[in-house]
Amino acid sequence: MEVSNDLLGYKDLKIVQNTDWFSFSLDSVLLANFIKIKKSDKLIMDLGTGNAPIPLILSTRTKAKIHGLEIQKEVFELAQKSISINKLCDQIDIINIDANDVSSLYETDSFDIITSNPPYFKINNNSLRNSNDQKSIARHEVKINIDDILRIAKKMLKNNGILGIVHRPERLIEILIKMKSYNIEPKRIQFIYPKKSGEANIMLIEGSKNGNEGLKIMPPLYVYDSEGNYTDDVKSMFGEW
Amino acid sequence: MEVSNDLLGYKDLKIVQNTDWFSFSLDSVLLANFIKIKKSDKLIMDLGTGNAPIPLILSTRTKAKIHGLEIQKEVFELAQKSISINKLCDQIDIINIDANDVSSLYETDSFDIITSNPPYFKINNNSLRNSNDQKSIARHEVKINIDDILRIAKKMLKNNGILGIVHRPERLIEILIKMKSYNIEPKRIQFIYPKKSGEANIMLIEGSKNGNEGLKIMPPLYVYDSEGNYTDDVKSMFGEW
Repeated sequence: MEVSNDLLGYKDLKIVQNTDWFSFSLDSVLLANFIKIKKSDKLIMDLGTGNAPIPLILSTRTKAKIHGLEIQKEVFELAQKSISINKLCDQIDIINIDANDVSSLYETDSFDIITSNPPYFKINNNSLRNSNDQKSIARHEVKINIDDILRIAKKMLKNNGILGIVHRPERLIEILIKMKSYNIEPKRIQFIYPKKSGEANIMLIEGSKNGNEGLKIMPPLYVYDSEGNYTDDVKSMFGEW
Repeated sequence: MEVSNDLLGYKDLKIVQNTDWFSFSLDSVLLANFIKIKKSDKLIMDLGTGNAPIPLILSTRTKAKIHGLEIQKEVFELAQKSISINKLCDQIDIINIDANDVSSLYETDSFDIITSNPPYFKINNNSLRNSNDQKSIARHEVKINIDDILRIAKKMLKNNGILGIVHRPERLIEILIKMKSYNIEPKRIQFIYPKKSGEANIMLIEGSKNGNEGLKIMPPLYVYDSEGNYTDDVKSMFGEW
C-alpha cells in the first residue's frame, strides 16, 4: 500500500501521519496537556498510541520513560518514524502489541502514569462491518474497550498512580461507575467546549489507583472563539505552530 | 423567639428570610432557572423548600401548581409569609411536612417536575452536635438525604417526569450512581464556577424518571466577573434586582 505521509508540527515536534487513516487529533493534545506529571514520575505508558502524539507531547513535559503501545502494524510504523525524526528513541519506546497483552512485557504495579485516547464508540452492527480497517479500530471498541483500559490501569499502575483518558461526555456516567469498580478513583475532570454557547463534546478524566474520594471539576476549556479561530488557551498548547 | 425578617427582592418578588438561620441562596436561583419546564406541565413539587425561593421563582416561568414542602415550622411560616406577600396563594401551596411522608398527601406518579436544593453535607460527628438547629437541618443530611430525595422522585414523578437538583460537584459520582439505581436517568448537567479560573463549586443536575440514556454537559456558568461583580448571565436571572 502506497501512502503519502504528512508531517504535522506541534511546537518543535514533527508528527508523521496518514490522513487517509485518521489524523493526529486535538483530543490527544488536550489530554497530554491536562495530565498531572510529578518530577518523581519515571515510567509512563500510552495505550493505543496511534501515531504517538501523546508520548511526543509528554516528552516536552517530562524526562520520564514513555512506552507507547499500538496494535496496528502500519500505524506503529508511522509512530516509530515520528520518534526517530524527533530523535526521541532514548525516551520513547513504541511497541507493536495488543495492549491487553501488556503484562507479558512489564512488571505489574510499576507505572506512574497511564494515558489513553481510546476508541470512543461502542461496537454496533454498522461498525462491525468495517471492523478491520485502521479507522474503525481507532474509533470503535473493536480491539480495546473502556473495561480493558481500566483493567490494564488497575494491574500496571503503581499504588496512587494516575490514569488519564479523553472521552466523550455522553459516556461520563458509565466511565465513572467503571472507574470506581476497578479502584481507579476519579479525581479531576475537565470538559472541553467547541464554543462558548454549546454543550461539551470532549472530556478529560484523571483517576488515581486506590486513591481517596474527592472529585474536582476543573475550569472549562473552549476550543474556538466566536470567529472560529483557536482560542488562546488552545494556541498556547501548540506553541509555535 | 424574636427574629428580624429581611425582605429580599427577586425580579418583582419579595422573599422573606431570617439571615440568622440561612439566606435565600444563589443556588436556588440557579436551579429554578435551569430546570426545563414544558407548557403541558401541571404539577411541581419542591422538596425542602426553605423560605420558598424555588416555588416563587418557578411561578414566574409557569402556570403549573407548585407544592413546597418544609419540615421546619418556623421556616415554613416564613415561606407562607412570602407566598402571601406576593399574592401567590392560588398557585403555590407550602406544606409543613416531612418530605419522607409525602405519599400520604399526593397520588404517586402524579408530578411533572420535582425540584430540590437539599442539604449538601453528610452527617458527621461535628454536624450531629448541632443537628436540631435550623442551619444544620438545611445544610446537613439530618432530616433528608440524597437517597430520600431519589426515593420520593421515583415514587411521585410521572413516567418521564423531571427531577432537578442542585448540589456540590464533589458528590457528583455518588449522585449519578444513585440516580441510575432509582431509575432517574441523568440527562443534563451544568457546572457553576465562581470565577473563570477556578474549579466548579455548584452543579445542577436534571434527571428523567425511566428516561433513556443520553447525558449532556451544558455550557458552564460563571457567577462573578474579574472585578467581583455578578456576571451578566447571573444578573439576567435576577432581572430588575
